[in-house]
Amino acid sequence: MAICYQSPIKPITIPQSKALTNPKLSFRCNLSLPSRSNPLTISEPEPVYASVKAFAPATIANLGPGFDFLGCAVDGLGDFVSLSLDPNVQPGEVSISEISGDNANRLSKSPLWNCAGIAAIEVMKMLGIRSVGLSLSLEKGLPLGSGLGSSAASAAAAAVAVNELFGGKLGVKELVMAGLKSEEKVSGYHADNVAPAIMGGFVLIQNYEPVELIPLRFPEEKDLFFVLTTPEFEAPTKKMRAALPAEIGMPHHVWNSSQGGALVAGVLLGDLIILGKALSSDKVVEPRRAPLIPGMEAVKKAAIEAGAFGCTISGAGPTAVAVIDDEKKGAEIGEEMVKAFLKEGNLKAVANVHRLDRIGARLISGIPR
Amino acid sequence: MAICYQSPIKPITIPQSKALTNPKLSFRCNLSLPSRSNPLTISEPEPVYASVKAFAPATIANLGPGFDFLGCAVDGLGDFVSLSLDPNVQPGEVSISEISGDNANRLSKSPLWNCAGIAAIEVMKMLGIRSVGLSLSLEKGLPLGSGLGSSAASAAAAAVAVNELFGGKLGVKELVMAGLKSEEKVSGYHADNVAPAIMGGFVLIQNYEPVELIPLRFPEEKDLFFVLTTPEFEAPTKKMRAALPAEIGMPHHVWNSSQGGALVAGVLLGDLIILGKALSSDKVVEPRRAPLIPGMEAVKKAAIEAGAFGCTISGAGPTAVAVIDDEKKGAEIGEEMVKAFLKEGNLKAVANVHRLDRIGARLISGIPR
Repeated sequence: MAICYQSPIKPITIPQSKALTNPKLSFRCNLSLPSRSNPLTISEPEPVYASVKAFAPATIANLGPGFDFLGCAVDGLGDFVSLSLDPNVQPGEVSISEISGDNANRLSKSPLWNCAGIAAIEVMKMLGIRSVGLSLSLEKGLPLGSGLGSSAASAAAAAVAVNELFGGKLGVKELVMAGLKSEEKVSGYHADNVAPAIMGGFVLIQNYEPVELIPLRFPEEKDLFFVLTTPEFEAPTKKMRAALPAEIGMPHHVWNSSQGGALVAGVLLGDLIILGKALSSDKVVEPRRAPLIPGMEAVKKAAIEAGAFGCTISGAGPTAVAVIDDEKKGAEIGEEMVKAFLKEGNLKAVANVHRLDRIGARLISGIPR
Repeated sequence: MAICYQSPIKPITIPQSKALTNPKLSFRCNLSLPSRSNPLTISEPEPVYASVKAFAPATIANLGPGFDFLGCAVDGLGDFVSLSLDPNVQPGEVSISEISGDNANRLSKSPLWNCAGIAAIEVMKMLGIRSVGLSLSLEKGLPLGSGLGSSAASAAAAAVAVNELFGGKLGVKELVMAGLKSEEKVSGYHADNVAPAIMGGFVLIQNYEPVELIPLRFPEEKDLFFVLTTPEFEAPTKKMRAALPAEIGMPHHVWNSSQGGALVAGVLLGDLIILGKALSSDKVVEPRRAPLIPGMEAVKKAAIEAGAFGCTISGAGPTAVAVIDDEKKGAEIGEEMVKAFLKEGNLKAVANVHRLDRIGARLISGIPR
């Protein structure tokens, strides 16, 4: 019997009585329990579910001057991880039974080399799981290498799935650290995708040693939409990284720092004019990377001319992200961005308008033991 | 007859009836009127007062990772400008009649080379004053070269005094631009002192072309105190500027940008832990400048050990600034900072605890015509 809450896709209904027997189910999975400073010292928890399904959203990292320290989650787009207790799997281990979705065949089924697998193992270690084995199925809703935090979404969904299966003992910070282990192995030691994928909203990474995360709450009463325009183009990851300058002149450092500060202010004040200007203002990374994505500069110009508050590259690209406060206007902006990709970059592209995801990774359903 | 409001020093009482005849007097001078996009097109305003006295607070610029783009105002410490219509002064011009206070003899009485004079002239130009001349008296409450925005306080007080004398036609942005003209001439084209000196609170400078200022409101219900510890030492201004690195490596750029963002978040959220950590975290400027101020590194350490949330150099020094949420605790921290300056830097120092000034430059008193 499935128990459902906060499904981004399709709600699964359950008998009222069952839902009421476990009052904790109404809480957000990733904030339902306090963080423990040393989870390794806790005794091995019993599984609460026989199986669970978790979802984690797409994320936009870098955010112009927020390079490598600021990211946010995007509603209605992400990855799913299903997890079940499996007596055929070695106790304390994870086996990946299935990967579905676009380009699933490009992903490793070895849990040691799969984002979801690595994060799942890490959470099991943190919880001290030694008595049961888990079978994991990954459903990719996100395209690979699109700049939308595909690896982070898989890791976040897996981390939350394992944690919830064992009663949600770990707090947000541990889950981010588990996701970070995965990111480190597959795409670099940065938490600006995996932290918002787990926590939702905007998250600022203040420190890695120890991990310190600042959730930045965009005011509930205000609308924020992202126009995500993804061209049919694989961003050259190595070139994207190599394009980064090793040194930044003081004037550009001060400029970008001030814009990073303004971006934070724009988010917390819910001021899209400030936020948009800051988003568009990067003088350090975007000017190096944009030329590597055909048409990107024209796409940004088209978005702004069509009324977007701001526009930049999402993650390391090739997706372009524009911000707006109105869904219909967002669709119009998206059309102009698609046209610009075709005209100036000779690339077909698809645009979609998404809200900010304020929840982050969450349990979708669970079958009690 | 003197009219008084918001005096930081000593209130001057006036007959009730007089105060009531001018209801505008109860508004804050610097926010009482909207900004005009082109002040040069307005007709020459009539003076509202025969003379006025204005005050502008000390300011802390740089603020660790907020280097060159973030500053805040400090309560109960600042400069005064008295201004009167003077038929002996050439119409459209300003004459400086007196400069009092510490080191007053080091300041030029030529209005073209005095911070207050330059700002006053600039505001007169903006207002199109051609028919009357003004006599200006400057009372320095701030020591020169202490890192507390001495030049900005003079400029801000003068700008507000002139504006108010003519009925407060200009808005905040024009006043900041007038102050910026002064700063440009005497200490460099940066608004991170003069903007908070005029606007109060914390101010982020997002842009100079055109000037874009973001007031960052520290929550009213929370306490914020600055422990300002000034040693008997003249910071070597040229060396301080020369110590700045021309280039910053990418890791330090990302680090400082993230801390700048965290600092903004700390202010807006009223979270002194986040704010203090960010304030203390500068890896770009402070490590180069601190060694030029004897004992500074030990002073910072002493402040943190004594319970400060964070500590850094105020402006270009030599004042050290620590933050705390309790006045008494602030005094204790100050004692430790003074001891450290003496022990490690062989410098006598004075510590004072001040609140955040949330108002900025203001009219203290005015004698109607």
